[in-house]
Amino acid sequence: MSRPVISLLTDFGPDGPAAVCRGVMLSIAPDVQIVDIGHNVPKYSVRDGAYLMWASLPYLPVGVHVGVVDPGVGTDRRPIAVMTGRGDILVGPDNGLLVPAARRLGGIVAVKIIENRDWMLPVTASTFHGRDIFAPVAAHLASGRSYDDVGAALDPEQIVDLRFPEPLAADRRLETAVLYIDSFGNVRLGARPASLAEVVGPLVPGRPLVVELRASGGRSAARLELTWEQTFGSVSLGTPLLYEDSVGLVALADNQGNAARRLGIALDDPVSIGQD
Amino acid sequence: MSRPVISLLTDFGPDGPAAVCRGVMLSIAPDVQIVDIGHNVPKYSVRDGAYLMWASLPYLPVGVHVGVVDPGVGTDRRPIAVMTGRGDILVGPDNGLLVPAARRLGGIVAVKIIENRDWMLPVTASTFHGRDIFAPVAAHLASGRSYDDVGAALDPEQIVDLRFPEPLAADRRLETAVLYIDSFGNVRLGARPASLAEVVGPLVPGRPLVVELRASGGRSAARLELTWEQTFGSVSLGTPLLYEDSVGLVALADNQGNAARRLGIALDDPVSIGQD
Amino acid sequence: MSRPVISLLTDFGPDGPAAVCRGVMLSIAPDVQIVDIGHNVPKYSVRDGAYLMWASLPYLPVGVHVGVVDPGVGTDRRPIAVMTGRGDILVGPDNGLLVPAARRLGGIVAVKIIENRDWMLPVTASTFHGRDIFAPVAAHLASGRSYDDVGAALDPEQIVDLRFPEPLAADRRLETAVLYIDSFGNVRLGARPASLAEVVGPLVPGRPLVVELRASGGRSAARLELTWEQTFGSVSLGTPLLYEDSVGLVALADNQGNAARRLGIALDDPVSIGQD
Repeated sequence: MSRPVISLLTDFGPDGPAAVCRGVMLSIAPDVQIVDIGHNVPKYSVRDGAYLMWASLPYLPVGVHVGVVDPGVGTDRRPIAVMTGRGDILVGPDNGLLVPAARRLGGIVAVKIIENRDWMLPVTASTFHGRDIFAPVAAHLASGRSYDDVGAALDPEQIVDLRFPEPLAADRRLETAVLYIDSFGNVRLGARPASLAEVVGPLVPGRPLVVELRASGGRSAARLELTWEQTFGSVSLGTPLLYEDSVGLVALADNQGNAARRLGIALDDPVSIGQD
Repeated sequence: MSRPVISLLTDFGPDGPAAVCRGVMLSIAPDVQIVDIGHNVPKYSVRDGAYLMWASLPYLPVGVHVGVVDPGVGTDRRPIAVMTGRGDILVGPDNGLLVPAARRLGGIVAVKIIENRDWMLPVTASTFHGRDIFAPVAAHLASGRSYDDVGAALDPEQIVDLRFPEPLAADRRLETAVLYIDSFGNVRLGARPASLAEVVGPLVPGRPLVVELRASGGRSAARLELTWEQTFGSVSLGTPLLYEDSVGLVALADNQGNAARRLGIALDDPVSIGQD
Repeated sequence: MSRPVISLLTDFGPDGPAAVCRGVMLSIAPDVQIVDIGHNVPKYSVRDGAYLMWASLPYLPVGVHVGVVDPGVGTDRRPIAVMTGRGDILVGPDNGLLVPAARRLGGIVAVKIIENRDWMLPVTASTFHGRDIFAPVAAHLASGRSYDDVGAALDPEQIVDLRFPEPLAADRRLETAVLYIDSFGNVRLGARPASLAEVVGPLVPGRPLVVELRASGGRSAARLELTWEQTFGSVSLGTPLLYEDSVGLVALADNQGNAARRLGIALDDPVSIGQD
């Protein structure tokens, strides 16, 4: 019989507190298989954390998934456990972090406030709920204890929502925004190729497109003439391209370069795509 | 039956040598559960490594815990295995790294010099005892071989000690020092709230306090007027606070900011706390 | 019975995509033991990835080893699975990444093109073969499915080769080059002590040697008068030394310093070693 899976995503950095959470889980559920989604989420960036859970969890086994990007730790923001249509339980703060992933895992079936003191550590510090509440509750759930015992049910409509930016078709251009910047500096946009194709026509490899970035912060406006491609190596070294990324979004990259750094692109920057 | 636990803390960086240690452990003890405490300890910083083991290990299952921050590798500093009151065995160099954690895990019950050549790799390089000595010895211990067979006993008084800074009450101020800076830039001090309360009176949320930092290195002196709080979100964004951190120490943070970076604070900097 | 081992090395960075690969593996082979070799390989640096696999894999149990540093993803570069003399299977792109490690694990016994669609994810994105091809194929192999079923055999002579720099003896000097710079800034050279000894005579601790670095890029030429030593601590703090590193190469370090940073040394820089 296979080991129950708990995944863990935080903005704790790689050393220390993430290991403490793993230690707490293994102390309660010694046979659990822990999968670290990542601990380098930019501090307090609930959106980046939400994106990573959304992009990653569909590829993990059904399990308990803990997310802790939690600037409101110790305030009156609620700790919650979200049951998904696929059968996963997502555990973390009620600040939107868990919502996009839950929607993608078959939708939100139920939400509970985490209230069961018996599943928490005996002392709960007001600044480290990952260790004292989320990790031990996840371990109890992963060892087979009942979701019913987590705490009071909450109307799913009552939890904090988080929506990714939606594209807008306007005057033969698609107006979208930066959803996520990956470690390669590739810029994932909040639009799917189908939305872009509706505005500019079929996206065949080699098709010319124009990307416009408005000036913002320290960055000047930029206008990129590039092509739609299937993969990075279809254009020469350092050349930009648009492509459908591995999660099905329109994305901007430089072949073997770092487009976000070269262009000074930041999260949520507006991006306009057209044919000229 | 659950898998034996080995934890691993090093300053090796995340890639390569830490994996080599894991590989050596799994080659000897295939069913061991490895928990990485972290591998990004600042190079050669025995104190930072000691802090992380001290802060983390109490939350791990009883097991074998390897620490390798080892600037003296290959010199005559001794490799040791420390038995704790809780039943853990701590494995690493005799340079103080293991001592604070061992004290916190029920105290040092016994110390042995690692001498058993049969438990080491056949060839031991003079620059990588993590791979050739500490990892394989830990794996043999985790698979149930006897602590008695590690090597000769050593008087616990004879190993290198490492003490965290102790606070000093002086003239209605508490003089303490920076014990650790976490990845959020929160500044953990070498004092407990009880020591501070003895000097300034009860620490109720909202109570005004003054923190003074002397000029040092490139940093000017700073005087912070702030409040004692239960958690970060009790003050507005970017505002500093003092609080009891998750390991029970007095700590200084900026709500959703990085206090250490803003103020140029470094390890061991003296910090003075008073009421005006 | 012990769990089958899969190791994973990528340039994906620590968060997100590496976890996705682990999730895919565990979904197919729930009992697999995953060992992360590292995910911080400099982007697109096939040589750095090849070095890390070469240096690390001999210390791992026999298993399936996935390497993904893959600037040509989605182009016509082939996905391959290499059987080694030791019994490991190395899975990744045909760009040289797997070759040095395979040679060190008993040599390349067979190579197959990965073609078995049943072992891949149903949809294979053109920019993330780690997730869609390499991880699931590795998991199928680790769960005991037959190497014969991977795909068509390929003549081992037909895959892309990757060779580490070889030293050259010239005029009582050894001309070598930088093979790898580790996280301590220690500079691993493409030469073994035996080659150096042939040119300069026996390498006894304390023996004076001279290292010459040519000017290159932003770096001026440097001439280092140093000694051959057994370990870092044999010289005073910050002093350079030459030594036999833990993989058996000649290496240059500063005791508790960062030699590569201090001297501006980069991968493949030529290094000349002599006695004066």
